[in-house]
Amino acid sequence: MSNENKRIGFICPISSFLKSFIYVEGVLTLTNSGFHVAVVGATGAVGTQMIKVLEARNFPIEKLTLLSSSRSAGKKIQYKGETIVVEEAKPESFEGVDIALFSAGGSISKQLAPEAVKRGAIVIDNTSAYRMDPEVPLVVPEVNAEDLNNHKGIIANPNCSTIQMVVALEPIRQKLGLNRVIVSTYQAVSGAGFQAVEELNRQTKDILEGKEVKPEILPVKADKKHYQIAFNAIPQIDLFQDNGFTFEEMKMINETKKIMHLPELKVSATCVRIPVATGHSESVYFEVEKENVDVAEIQNILASSPGVVLEDNPNEQIYPLATTAAGKEGVFVGRIRKDLDEDKGFHMWVVSDNLLKGAALNSVQIAESLIEQRIVSK
Amino acid sequence: MSNENKRIGFICPISSFLKSFIYVEGVLTLTNSGFHVAVVGATGAVGTQMIKVLEARNFPIEKLTLLSSSRSAGKKIQYKGETIVVEEAKPESFEGVDIALFSAGGSISKQLAPEAVKRGAIVIDNTSAYRMDPEVPLVVPEVNAEDLNNHKGIIANPNCSTIQMVVALEPIRQKLGLNRVIVSTYQAVSGAGFQAVEELNRQTKDILEGKEVKPEILPVKADKKHYQIAFNAIPQIDLFQDNGFTFEEMKMINETKKIMHLPELKVSATCVRIPVATGHSESVYFEVEKENVDVAEIQNILASSPGVVLEDNPNEQIYPLATTAAGKEGVFVGRIRKDLDEDKGFHMWVVSDNLLKGAALNSVQIAESLIEQRIVSK
Repeated sequence: MSNENKRIGFICPISSFLKSFIYVEGVLTLTNSGFHVAVVGATGAVGTQMIKVLEARNFPIEKLTLLSSSRSAGKKIQYKGETIVVEEAKPESFEGVDIALFSAGGSISKQLAPEAVKRGAIVIDNTSAYRMDPEVPLVVPEVNAEDLNNHKGIIANPNCSTIQMVVALEPIRQKLGLNRVIVSTYQAVSGAGFQAVEELNRQTKDILEGKEVKPEILPVKADKKHYQIAFNAIPQIDLFQDNGFTFEEMKMINETKKIMHLPELKVSATCVRIPVATGHSESVYFEVEKENVDVAEIQNILASSPGVVLEDNPNEQIYPLATTAAGKEGVFVGRIRKDLDEDKGFHMWVVSDNLLKGAALNSVQIAESLIEQRIVSK
Repeated sequence: MSNENKRIGFICPISSFLKSFIYVEGVLTLTNSGFHVAVVGATGAVGTQMIKVLEARNFPIEKLTLLSSSRSAGKKIQYKGETIVVEEAKPESFEGVDIALFSAGGSISKQLAPEAVKRGAIVIDNTSAYRMDPEVPLVVPEVNAEDLNNHKGIIANPNCSTIQMVVALEPIRQKLGLNRVIVSTYQAVSGAGFQAVEELNRQTKDILEGKEVKPEILPVKADKKHYQIAFNAIPQIDLFQDNGFTFEEMKMINETKKIMHLPELKVSATCVRIPVATGHSESVYFEVEKENVDVAEIQNILASSPGVVLEDNPNEQIYPLATTAAGKEGVFVGRIRKDLDEDKGFHMWVVSDNLLKGAALNSVQIAESLIEQRIVSK
């Protein structure tokens, strides 16, 4: 499978077990067979995108089961012109399911993912529940698809801010080595769910109308204090840990090491929420191992890397932006420049849709990779 | 003069030449004497704040001349209950002026600052026109007030994003040494002027109403392309240089070295505009020279440093925010934590009102320091 194919994101009819698909104009079309797929958290910000991504990429689905909390059960969702009623997620919901995509919060995953596995499903979990479990592969297909072979039923989808960074860093590591990463993030509100986006919109409107705002959700719904996100930058995503870093920052640090198989890599992160609905941006400083690398070499590497779209022409003011990345599949990289003091140091600006490559798309790509590598089959 | 006094920002009646002031409840009160002060760019975002700061700090003013372009001349501005009519700035406007505060753009400063100096005024210039001129002191009073003694008529006020960073870094450098700085900024739109704030508000309203936006000002009015700032993050402030850094980034790099007298300091910057009206935030990574420093030591240093307000208690979700810093004089520092890999590396979050300490307040503090050091007197 060529990088080009990987980049535009379809799976090729490479194996006999896929003979039930026919390949028409670059799209895999399901004919009369496919997988029973379940989406857990189907009404949430990520779940909604998962369903859209499955449809847009024509994922081989024979049956689609949409699951949620009892509160959202009964809602109706369209998929390929058919109406599917969302059901309450229970252990028995996973009977007959081949692939279960979870994005309903860590506690739901901890409770129901083992139940799904017990019933024969492979779970692709988009929460942090299992990410650092040594028994669970943590996968970004462009980086470590081969880790899927070690799965024991559950595969973890990394944190949104981690995924886009490692997609950009991995091809650089392969060619130039990688010693160090320091990242500061500019994260979108949709990473905290639909309610947080509503809060951003409501606060923004209230401020423009001269009204007082009453923050209730961000930075962390379950935390003690809430702060205005409209026209602000909040340096807290998820709860604080004893070392002064937030859990989001520790996710970026630990997940990057695990995905890239670099336990000794020096990684630091500062994670900040800003008033953007969709699209995480990241200011990434990194040091390579090789000496005397120039910017053009890094641009060339990234221009031909799977999943990466190079947008880097300062003379024409071309650089990635959240507004242009939103709704797109790629990881957009630009503003690549050499540090003025460190020969091995470089800076770049990495942007991606946090609900797509940062969550739903990566989960579906994991499922596609499972099929492509014949780890799952009908 | 104690640090405490410096922090809350008034000047003390320390010398006989100040005998015309009387000290009442911590405020210097002008009785019957003072300086002839001119504000150039009096109707702009920074100029407006300069006038407010002069009034709030009861700066010793005998006469206040407000100057602008011909377009804004004729506007009326209140100062201490009196109405002052703004006049067009011309060379002869500076006759009899003691201190001229410039904030009307680099070309106006280049044209008129020498005219003001020729007529006996000391110019405090808030543009980038003279900042890197070796003959011109570039001053943040908490850091290098002594440099004012070398002035030859013009004193430069540093870039907003530089000022707040060096106020936080200098006390650390004094006690622990400083080897390296990597900063990513989250900069407010008011740094680009009133028009840019109007653009942010207009775009935000249009998007909430489902209308299309037509960017016209940001990221740089004079540049070729303009991008949406509402619900976005733009990694361009000022024009691009040949090395791939923007001029704003080079200002932070070069000005930091000049103000701190550390020409060999390793400094890198990524400057990003976010949809915040007022208050720049900065994610600052720095490496000290001393080994085995802990976070408490840095917190203790900053807690007693002039101009710094420590807001750092993760357990209580206390950290600086643009919304709480706006309108205040301090440089707020929090989220101080030790790097997990580098013993000498630390991270912090630095926030300040970009129009106050980042511009108007620092200019007025320079003027106060000139009086305090008897560099200017009546």
